[in-house]
Amino acid sequence: MNEVAIYQDLVLENEQKIVLLVLDGVGDIVSATTPQTALERARTPNLDRIAPQSAVGCMTPVIPGVTPGSGPGHLGLFGYDPTEVTVGRGVIEALGLDLELKPGDVAARANFCTVDNAGIVTDRRAGRIPTEENRELCELLQREIPEVDGVPVTIVPGKGHRFVVVFHGRDAGLGEGVADTDPHVTGKPISAPESLGGTAGSTRTAAVITALYGKALPLLKTRAHANAFLLRGIAVKPPIPTLRERFGLRSVAIATYPMYKGLAQLVGMQKEQPPGELVRDLFTAFRSVRDRYDFFFIHVKLTDQGGEDGDMDLKVQTIEEVDADLPELLEGKPDVLAVTGDHSTPVSMKMHSWHPIPVMIHSAVCGWDRRPRFTEREAGAGSLGNFPSKYLLPLLMANARKFDKYGA
Amino acid sequence: MNEVAIYQDLVLENEQKIVLLVLDGVGDIVSATTPQTALERARTPNLDRIAPQSAVGCMTPVIPGVTPGSGPGHLGLFGYDPTEVTVGRGVIEALGLDLELKPGDVAARANFCTVDNAGIVTDRRAGRIPTEENRELCELLQREIPEVDGVPVTIVPGKGHRFVVVFHGRDAGLGEGVADTDPHVTGKPISAPESLGGTAGSTRTAAVITALYGKALPLLKTRAHANAFLLRGIAVKPPIPTLRERFGLRSVAIATYPMYKGLAQLVGMQKEQPPGELVRDLFTAFRSVRDRYDFFFIHVKLTDQGGEDGDMDLKVQTIEEVDADLPELLEGKPDVLAVTGDHSTPVSMKMHSWHPIPVMIHSAVCGWDRRPRFTEREAGAGSLGNFPSKYLLPLLMANARKFDKYGA
Repeated sequence: MNEVAIYQDLVLENEQKIVLLVLDGVGDIVSATTPQTALERARTPNLDRIAPQSAVGCMTPVIPGVTPGSGPGHLGLFGYDPTEVTVGRGVIEALGLDLELKPGDVAARANFCTVDNAGIVTDRRAGRIPTEENRELCELLQREIPEVDGVPVTIVPGKGHRFVVVFHGRDAGLGEGVADTDPHVTGKPISAPESLGGTAGSTRTAAVITALYGKALPLLKTRAHANAFLLRGIAVKPPIPTLRERFGLRSVAIATYPMYKGLAQLVGMQKEQPPGELVRDLFTAFRSVRDRYDFFFIHVKLTDQGGEDGDMDLKVQTIEEVDADLPELLEGKPDVLAVTGDHSTPVSMKMHSWHPIPVMIHSAVCGWDRRPRFTEREAGAGSLGNFPSKYLLPLLMANARKFDKYGA
Repeated sequence: MNEVAIYQDLVLENEQKIVLLVLDGVGDIVSATTPQTALERARTPNLDRIAPQSAVGCMTPVIPGVTPGSGPGHLGLFGYDPTEVTVGRGVIEALGLDLELKPGDVAARANFCTVDNAGIVTDRRAGRIPTEENRELCELLQREIPEVDGVPVTIVPGKGHRFVVVFHGRDAGLGEGVADTDPHVTGKPISAPESLGGTAGSTRTAAVITALYGKALPLLKTRAHANAFLLRGIAVKPPIPTLRERFGLRSVAIATYPMYKGLAQLVGMQKEQPPGELVRDLFTAFRSVRDRYDFFFIHVKLTDQGGEDGDMDLKVQTIEEVDADLPELLEGKPDVLAVTGDHSTPVSMKMHSWHPIPVMIHSAVCGWDRRPRFTEREAGAGSLGNFPSKYLLPLLMANARKFDKYGA
């Protein structure tokens, strides 16, 4: 029997509450410029209090050496194998703009671009038009093109020259497997939306995209810069079994950034809007909805921001803010608390990385590893060893006594 | 090539002796009520002498978060993937009553129960009749029903209201995939033995079970309490390649409890009865049969009992008894000695658990990890890391120089 089926068969439901506290990108590395990691530098008296009474270890987010984007990073944390469950870029972008996607919807990233009289792309970013102009153009397109070939269309601006197009294809049999219309270099024309899949669905999507161009290009042709657009990452929202189906969990995402709420929604989580932007607000929200769910995904963004910006102080301060507010979370009495990240974002690298992610599990039956602090180095010496992220949720289920024994 | 085939291709036979010393459920956790594990508390001068000259690590018995029963726990130790090789409950129960199962045998757990005049189950445990009455009833049934529809039947009492029925189906084409006749609640009639598999084998088994009820119920109808019975976990002894076939090992189980001898028999081990119930008797038995086998599975039960009963003293004393007698084992000169458990049974949880199992491998070529003792914490820092139990036997094969090099 495969692992997913084994876990599913063992599920027991009970009243225990599981909190997954994700400090985005919290993992870090020691290097010539960073003699201590952010977790090592931060003053964390509250984490230090529970760390010795926790089980710790490290996680590999995807497979060794692979740096995940936010999608695979979080899918792993939610118990899915990110090499098997993939989410197309268009879907991630749509979720990032807070769009609700339904089964059958096809989403694409889009860029405004500049073409010359012969239709050759001369600037793939339309002179980096301001976001304000982008908004106007998207409003124009949306107003004039509510549907294409009977397929309702949603056009939503992002930042700068970027926007998202969603084709609501539930009744239209749309599929993915359509080539980007972006030629990815200047000096070439916009590519035809070729059906790579060769399925009825991908052929239909390609036809709808061709029709969209037919309606939209005339509306843009008088524009100095943004007189055309390019589509990439054309993708269907994947059919993913929910956390309720796989683990019997009523789950909720407590997050402020749309993309993370969107990723959570993909696996069937409800969303709870915290009362403010502070870490404390996330924890307050947990306490206010504690009775309604079994699993609480709490997302803290600024650790990742600190890593991405090479801003050690921001990363350290964010960890210290989490630590200072931790008593508020603990007063909500999670039966199982996990603290970890979705990937590492080393300050010295200013980007996501493949390095192991420290993880801490605290429960009545976690087993105390007696490590004095929660840092990369201490986690590396813990009882959990180094395991793929997809096993974290099963371990939390076990700690919550939500799994029956396997075999006699 | 899959792993099993790779290992099989590499097998070399030689005179080296491998001893797998299983302290059932030895792994434990530190918790609020258990500030030290049993391995930490026990005085173990002999283990402490070889620990620094051993390789140590931790094992995951099945997959992360999964708590194994004894069947999957031991199958892992014997080198089988317990997610692929599963043994039905009826087979485990039969093995636990020291029944020999042959290929084609179908075994079922059975409970005496009480039904009313309308055939409705009113007590699923027949008023918890005493074992003595159970024995009488099983003798009656066995005497009157030596076979059903030409299929020989064995009926063996267990404890209280529990017994086991084995259908010797080698020539009758019996199969598993038959629903329990136990309705699992009172207030319903005994369920029909429905063929879930829909195969010829499962249909045949269902028919034989129906015929068994036809013969047995009239024999019981005058009984006050045990006037019927319920069957569960109807299962065939699975076809498992033996240790001889997979690893070229002549193997023997030295154990006192029937279930563990039965599990060993499933993978082709011989059984050796120790001269008494003490740990020392197990080690004496090893020395007396050393020349006849390559692989010796020695099973110590009371560590698990201590865990299950929440009896730290029993667990500690059993470890100390093993340690005190270890010189007796070592005088038998095992070339490779592994000390481990089939799963953890934390004293604080009083049940099997999913926690990592410490393991120690001692041989001339194991590599010395120089850890001062054999405990969960020291094992967690060892060179073997944290690995699935199914890889232990291949590691022991390697230490015994029984594997050739892979590739040029």
